[in-house]
Amino acid sequence: MAFPPLTNDTFLRACLRQATPYTPLWLMRQAGRYLPEYKATRARAGSFMGLATNVQYATEVTLQPLDRFDLDAAILFSDILTVPDAMGLGLSFAEGEGPKLARPLRDEAAVSALRVPALNGRVPLIGFSGSPWTLACYMVEGSGSKDDWRTVKSMLYSRPDLMHRILATNAEAVAAYLNAQIDAGAQAVMVFDSWGGALADRAFREFSLAYTASVLAKLKRTGDGGDVIPRIVFTKGGGLWLDQMGGLDCDVLGVDWTVSLARARALVGGTKALQGNLDPAVLFAAPEQVAAEARKVLDDFGRPHAGTGLGPTHIFNLGHGISQHTPPDNVRALVEAVHSHSTHMRTGLNAA
Amino acid sequence: MAFPPLTNDTFLRACLRQATPYTPLWLMRQAGRYLPEYKATRARAGSFMGLATNVQYATEVTLQPLDRFDLDAAILFSDILTVPDAMGLGLSFAEGEGPKLARPLRDEAAVSALRVPALNGRVPLIGFSGSPWTLACYMVEGSGSKDDWRTVKSMLYSRPDLMHRILATNAEAVAAYLNAQIDAGAQAVMVFDSWGGALADRAFREFSLAYTASVLAKLKRTGDGGDVIPRIVFTKGGGLWLDQMGGLDCDVLGVDWTVSLARARALVGGTKALQGNLDPAVLFAAPEQVAAEARKVLDDFGRPHAGTGLGPTHIFNLGHGISQHTPPDNVRALVEAVHSHSTHMRTGLNAA
Repeated sequence: MAFPPLTNDTFLRACLRQATPYTPLWLMRQAGRYLPEYKATRARAGSFMGLATNVQYATEVTLQPLDRFDLDAAILFSDILTVPDAMGLGLSFAEGEGPKLARPLRDEAAVSALRVPALNGRVPLIGFSGSPWTLACYMVEGSGSKDDWRTVKSMLYSRPDLMHRILATNAEAVAAYLNAQIDAGAQAVMVFDSWGGALADRAFREFSLAYTASVLAKLKRTGDGGDVIPRIVFTKGGGLWLDQMGGLDCDVLGVDWTVSLARARALVGGTKALQGNLDPAVLFAAPEQVAAEARKVLDDFGRPHAGTGLGPTHIFNLGHGISQHTPPDNVRALVEAVHSHSTHMRTGLNAA
Repeated sequence: MAFPPLTNDTFLRACLRQATPYTPLWLMRQAGRYLPEYKATRARAGSFMGLATNVQYATEVTLQPLDRFDLDAAILFSDILTVPDAMGLGLSFAEGEGPKLARPLRDEAAVSALRVPALNGRVPLIGFSGSPWTLACYMVEGSGSKDDWRTVKSMLYSRPDLMHRILATNAEAVAAYLNAQIDAGAQAVMVFDSWGGALADRAFREFSLAYTASVLAKLKRTGDGGDVIPRIVFTKGGGLWLDQMGGLDCDVLGVDWTVSLARARALVGGTKALQGNLDPAVLFAAPEQVAAEARKVLDDFGRPHAGTGLGPTHIFNLGHGISQHTPPDNVRALVEAVHSHSTHMRTGLNAA
């Protein structure tokens, strides 16, 4: 069976703010339950972790969306919580539920026992991890939260010293994990700060942004072959802090659908590429409505830099992971609309 | 039993951007499950709706937090979903769960059958309702959502015409309800756009903000006695759209904890009072930590206008409803810290 090659020059060029003939796109969680072939592989694997930890299965599902759609990047099939699992907290996924950790951190002894794990790399195109703060959310709660992260936030406000120890450990672990992925051939890396947006304004700077910056400071700048490894940082719900995120040592900022791309470009487009930001719920509408909404996202960013050298570039994505309820044909409509409209924007005489 | 009077000049003055000797405060959901006396009354009432629809019980729990803490405003004990209930959708609350509507809107026939209800006013200090969009979320889903409002957003993107019909009906109903509350003696009114922040940037303007504006346009400006009735609009997760909300015909904008009050003041403080924005999770820490975080919120806003005429004012509140798990003694620490530090800020020689 012939798979398309994993490397994609268009995506990497856009990450580095170089001109491309069209806007590259990939979809967060593009390998997943909305694809029947994914469900078939997962059934064979027996469980989510059986899938994610088996090289053959994980490779298979990583490539499935590329086989079906003309996407411009692959992302390793994995989970943002593999780092706490490697730290011994015991990750599992029950069918139809979110992640659960068997041994959450609830006291000082558990925090003191935390160690940076030895990690073995894999070979993704885009490597990724949860951010130190996002990992801490799950590590303290033991799972997702039904009451606004009450347990982890209680620790944050009551014992900031303990929270800082967890975050410093996580930053080491995340950097080691991403560096291992770079060593194994990852051509770009992404930090998912999925729960940064749950923090208060001041707390975001102190407990999330500072530790994402610490991860970035420890990351290798190039891979074995000497190629620059672009870094993407995505804070869900972080639109209010884009100006602060503009100071991060990364190449791309991901934004969710609450952000105006035009405004984000005006704020940080002088130094960062932007990734996003279609509302995943758009993919529940009819294909022609999906295409129309995709064009609005492209138009919101406006005409990207099209000359030589560096300038504002856009990587199309959703504002969050694709829903398991998405009809695959709508993804096809999305990919076609993004490629054709963004090509037209670059060549049309009156493109904005 | 002697209750403090419901009227509070400090709160109303701050709403209208007039100077006050300290920063008034009240807490969203201040009558609720964190108070043992509330739980006792609810047990007698039998159910949430039994409590909310019985004048004696509702009055009792409305006054409970004022009897216990030195708060500067009362808010009618009710729910943001009383309007869809009055429209015939059948509201109920199971113990420990969120709202459920028995007859959600799922097709065109159900939307066509919607009517603006006849509403009987009550006598709150602050009257309130959900926003047209927030009501529509529950009206279409039938309850809160576990998957990012998939059903209501599917309708929004697939059948925007139907969504606009629901929203136009809701705007009429919400305005009629708030006007009835003003007739019955409400001295301020608040629109809770609890789920506006779930919308994409463009969709927020079209499906939430426009209909909140429509409600405001239909509201009485003064009560029977000729007093101006201040209007508060709160969009949870709406910090990115504060500049647009600055154009609303209201007096106060509420903001959640992700917003910098200093920045919000710079953006809209020239025309709006600001309400917020302590992270409710702060109230799980120790009393001295609660007080310290409260002072940070006050300092973030900075010294309010202290002279004659109009200027920037701040009403202290949480960034969202108080949690049922909050220790009541921490609320006491909060109230004391806000009143004393905000008094000091106005009188201290070096207050910022």
